[in-house]
Amino acid sequence: MKIGARNRLEGDVTEIKRGTVMSQVKVRVAGGAIMESVMTLDSLDELGLKIGDKVRVAVKAVNVMLIKP
Amino acid sequence: MKIGARNRLEGDVTEIKRGTVMSQVKVRVAGGAIMESVMTLDSLDELGLKIGDKVRVAVKAVNVMLIKP
Amino acid sequence: MKIGARNRLEGDVTEIKRGTVMSQVKVRVAGGAIMESVMTLDSLDELGLKIGDKVRVAVKAVNVMLIKP
Amino acid sequence: MKIGARNRLEGDVTEIKRGTVMSQVKVRVAGGAIMESVMTLDSLDELGLKIGDKVRVAVKAVNVMLIKP
Amino acid sequence: MKIGARNRLEGDVTEIKRGTVMSQVKVRVAGGAIMESVMTLDSLDELGLKIGDKVRVAVKAVNVMLIKP
Amino acid sequence: MKIGARNRLEGDVTEIKRGTVMSQVKVRVAGGAIMESVMTLDSLDELGLKIGDKVRVAVKAVNVMLIKP
Repeated sequence: MKIGARNRLEGDVTEIKRGTVMSQVKVRVAGGAIMESVMTLDSLDELGLKIGDKVRVAVKAVNVMLIKP
Repeated sequence: MKIGARNRLEGDVTEIKRGTVMSQVKVRVAGGAIMESVMTLDSLDELGLKIGDKVRVAVKAVNVMLIKP
Repeated sequence: MKIGARNRLEGDVTEIKRGTVMSQVKVRVAGGAIMESVMTLDSLDELGLKIGDKVRVAVKAVNVMLIKP
Repeated sequence: MKIGARNRLEGDVTEIKRGTVMSQVKVRVAGGAIMESVMTLDSLDELGLKIGDKVRVAVKAVNVMLIKP
Repeated sequence: MKIGARNRLEGDVTEIKRGTVMSQVKVRVAGGAIMESVMTLDSLDELGLKIGDKVRVAVKAVNVMLIKP
Repeated sequence: MKIGARNRLEGDVTEIKRGTVMSQVKVRVAGGAIMESVMTLDSLDELGLKIGDKVRVAVKAVNVMLIKP
């Protein structure tokens, strides 16, 4: 299976926070940075994510902003 | 200056492709992964990006998807 | 493999338009509606999409707007 | 009134979930698929959506991902 | 017709740039700021936009970032 | 510091609503319009936003939709 998103990192789930509608998942990626994803609780439960899981992080290139320090 | 985006990585610009309206910029981030950003040519020129530049990559958490292998 | 996006439709690629940086792909989904995706040419080529291919269409729920007629 | 989003499906609201800040609305579209939209509670209340309402689902093409099975 | 997007400004189209797949439209909104929209050429042509047209600018709240100077 | 987003307005924070995972911030921009941003509580707290603060509103052009009345 291939997905049309140009930004894919791999990492481990380090934290999960559940709200009423939404949830927030933190992932430590290679190099040590923390990436965060916000998704519906329904998505979280369907993925069955738990701390320690290996995941791939995908972001469409149009949603990536660059900042020049 | 602080920006309200939870995903911030640092990297070096490795490739720039210019279209008519849009442009695509590749950035090598810590850990070696390549991130890609698509922005308007106007944004690219305003940022004045060129190969080798240090940039920060910012993504809103709502635009990050997780995939379970 | 599971993906954290709540909107998934299946369909057939009916049209592909290639630009310089971006490309546009039309997909006929069940029920007959046409969905369109814009992605980088790099993504298109990596997916190796061609007319007639079966694809799944995925959209994060935060990117779906509802309009009341 | 015309809206600049290339993906427009029609459907009926089948479920509404209210959180503190956000809400989630499920819509059954032609062909039987379920689409989900996440919006602020304020948007939900301004639209005055309730179960059974006819709505149009709109998604910008840049937010549509294609997956090759 | 009501749209579930919390950010709506009104303005006049001041510039249109056509690419191969995408197009870019500049709009002067109340207060004098310039807003820019990127959409497919197909969307642009379907909307039939031309310079001087009155338009409404809509952005989902999840796509709005705040920066603290 | 420069950010690759073409839509930048300035304004004052007029309202903040905190949920469990997400938060919603209203900003009055020049010309009097209200813009709204949804971000994680973590982002809100990291920005340290409070009512009356001056902020810049940034939106990528791909996330801006135009509507023709």
